[in-house]
Amino acid sequence: MDSIQTNTYTVHFNLSGYEFLNSYINDNKFSKIYVLVDANTHEFCLPQFMAQLQTEIHIEIIEIEAGEQHKTIDTCVGVWHTLSELNADRKSLLINLGGGVVTDLGGFVACTYKRGIKYVNVPTSLLAMVDASVGGKTGVDLGHLKNQVGVIHSGDMVLVNTGFLNTLPQNQLKSGLAEMLKHGLIYDRVYWNKLSNLSKLSLEDLDQLIYESIIIKKDIVIADPFENNMRKHLNFGHTLGHAIESYFLGNNSKADMLHGEAIAIGMLLECYISHELLEFSLKDLKAITKVIKHMYPSVEFDDDDLVSIIDLLKYDKKNENGNVNFVLLESIGKPKIDCLVENELIIKAFEYYKRISS
Amino acid sequence: MDSIQTNTYTVHFNLSGYEFLNSYINDNKFSKIYVLVDANTHEFCLPQFMAQLQTEIHIEIIEIEAGEQHKTIDTCVGVWHTLSELNADRKSLLINLGGGVVTDLGGFVACTYKRGIKYVNVPTSLLAMVDASVGGKTGVDLGHLKNQVGVIHSGDMVLVNTGFLNTLPQNQLKSGLAEMLKHGLIYDRVYWNKLSNLSKLSLEDLDQLIYESIIIKKDIVIADPFENNMRKHLNFGHTLGHAIESYFLGNNSKADMLHGEAIAIGMLLECYISHELLEFSLKDLKAITKVIKHMYPSVEFDDDDLVSIIDLLKYDKKNENGNVNFVLLESIGKPKIDCLVENELIIKAFEYYKRISS
Repeated sequence: MDSIQTNTYTVHFNLSGYEFLNSYINDNKFSKIYVLVDANTHEFCLPQFMAQLQTEIHIEIIEIEAGEQHKTIDTCVGVWHTLSELNADRKSLLINLGGGVVTDLGGFVACTYKRGIKYVNVPTSLLAMVDASVGGKTGVDLGHLKNQVGVIHSGDMVLVNTGFLNTLPQNQLKSGLAEMLKHGLIYDRVYWNKLSNLSKLSLEDLDQLIYESIIIKKDIVIADPFENNMRKHLNFGHTLGHAIESYFLGNNSKADMLHGEAIAIGMLLECYISHELLEFSLKDLKAITKVIKHMYPSVEFDDDDLVSIIDLLKYDKKNENGNVNFVLLESIGKPKIDCLVENELIIKAFEYYKRISS
Repeated sequence: MDSIQTNTYTVHFNLSGYEFLNSYINDNKFSKIYVLVDANTHEFCLPQFMAQLQTEIHIEIIEIEAGEQHKTIDTCVGVWHTLSELNADRKSLLINLGGGVVTDLGGFVACTYKRGIKYVNVPTSLLAMVDASVGGKTGVDLGHLKNQVGVIHSGDMVLVNTGFLNTLPQNQLKSGLAEMLKHGLIYDRVYWNKLSNLSKLSLEDLDQLIYESIIIKKDIVIADPFENNMRKHLNFGHTLGHAIESYFLGNNSKADMLHGEAIAIGMLLECYISHELLEFSLKDLKAITKVIKHMYPSVEFDDDDLVSIIDLLKYDKKNENGNVNFVLLESIGKPKIDCLVENELIIKAFEYYKRISS
């Protein structure tokens, strides 16, 4: 697959990608290389990755604990200290080898260590390939508030090696698919149609679909890098999705929920709201409902859950002047930003979700 | 005094500065304003500042503890949480009212809260006026390592109200003067000459000297915002100065040392090294020695101190490939970057300092 060029960095793919990475490393004369992994990518991805790296430069491995609950400032403090102890200087390179937690947190650590060193993302989960490692959003959670602390700054390069997907469990793959579905819904009906026939798709098709998903995200981010307008489209499904994810993350009595599982529910709820508010067609709502119901586990919400989730909306990063700003859909491929939604309608959307889940 | 325009922000002065600030606030339609202070500026500067602010926008005060020992990630976590609890959104403005600790830390918090909100610096110490609040270096210390974590990003505006200097103790004023002396040494012999006659200067002269100092720093930062070449000149005196400051900060048995006091010693040591390595003239070395000896308290260093201070040089942010890179002077106004210095010569410089202090 051809590399994808943005104004500040390049996304390379698979074997040829390692050639670009090796040239990049040797051209930049880095003083040292640090590879950030979590326990999983240390075991399942690092050997494959290291086998492709060709450089004389000294390499150190830094491991963090796996899981969204470790995407915290405390983990950053640990990595900053480790870099200091290992004498990382400003000419060091940080390579983030992992899912969204490693790329989001590693990007933030790199952008802030000694006021910024260079970094490269090597996403190993589908979610990180199509979302987290493209667009320069770095960050960590603050308590149960998702990505509350971070910066927008891209590394120089993203290396997408789809071979890593073979190491992923099914539910993680589906979590990534949610962001791809979103790209279809906000940008391209043709792409959505391809994805919604996913049960008939092969792993080879997946490579091409990942490629197209990254192109969509890149086009949107280039048009509006600092999220003043169009980039907000990427938040479709995320206003309620993030609140649901935060609530489950902060609630010990609830089962763990993956990012994409929360976003899938968020998209379905926001499609319903779009139907009620913006004449989003019933036919499309039904089709989307079918795909998401088929693909993702259904989740139960009681009245107390709803109160807590709606309360969390006040922390949404898109809020302005006390208003919760939703991104809704007029139709597939045609989003509308800054929509205000009454709590009553949100509750009605959850009732719809309950009906179709039963 | 006229405002000083850079490519990304403007420095305004005194009464007319408040007019610009009021216009800026009202033009930007911020959702809320947060003023970050420490215990000192809360008491001594905030009333004066608030009296000049003309806006209907809701204002909240956030106080942190005073002192370099609180310029930490822990303090940032406290401020990020407070902003979240007070529902600060992306359209919020943070005003940092204080010395370098408040402006450095507040700038970092603003650049990272929800991936970046706007901020304005209102420096209240001489040091912050001429150094910390110009040039976009934000950051906090990591353990005893100075400014190890941060970003380079300027706020939209700096408001220099020299009236705040009346609230400062003498040693704090002198701490700020060290950076002004540095600006003379690295950039402009005429400016250095004016400053070195400081005992004959009035407070009115000081206003003009602050103005010139900011112009020098601005010229250097504009020429090289990301510190690839010329901006390194600003690190003159800081390689040894920072190590000395870090060492005293991390050592409970040592008296507190102000930033400028450490930098003054660092400059003197590095002038001596410049004399030995680069033919920096003996006459100028003597003149500088006289000024610094007259202005700053002398400090004793024993052999153990020297070992620890030299060891700390390995964390200097300018290091590359394991080398400690000094900025030295060929003559006043003519710095040279990336100079390697043997430890033996550093020890000799401390011996010189000891001789002239006795």
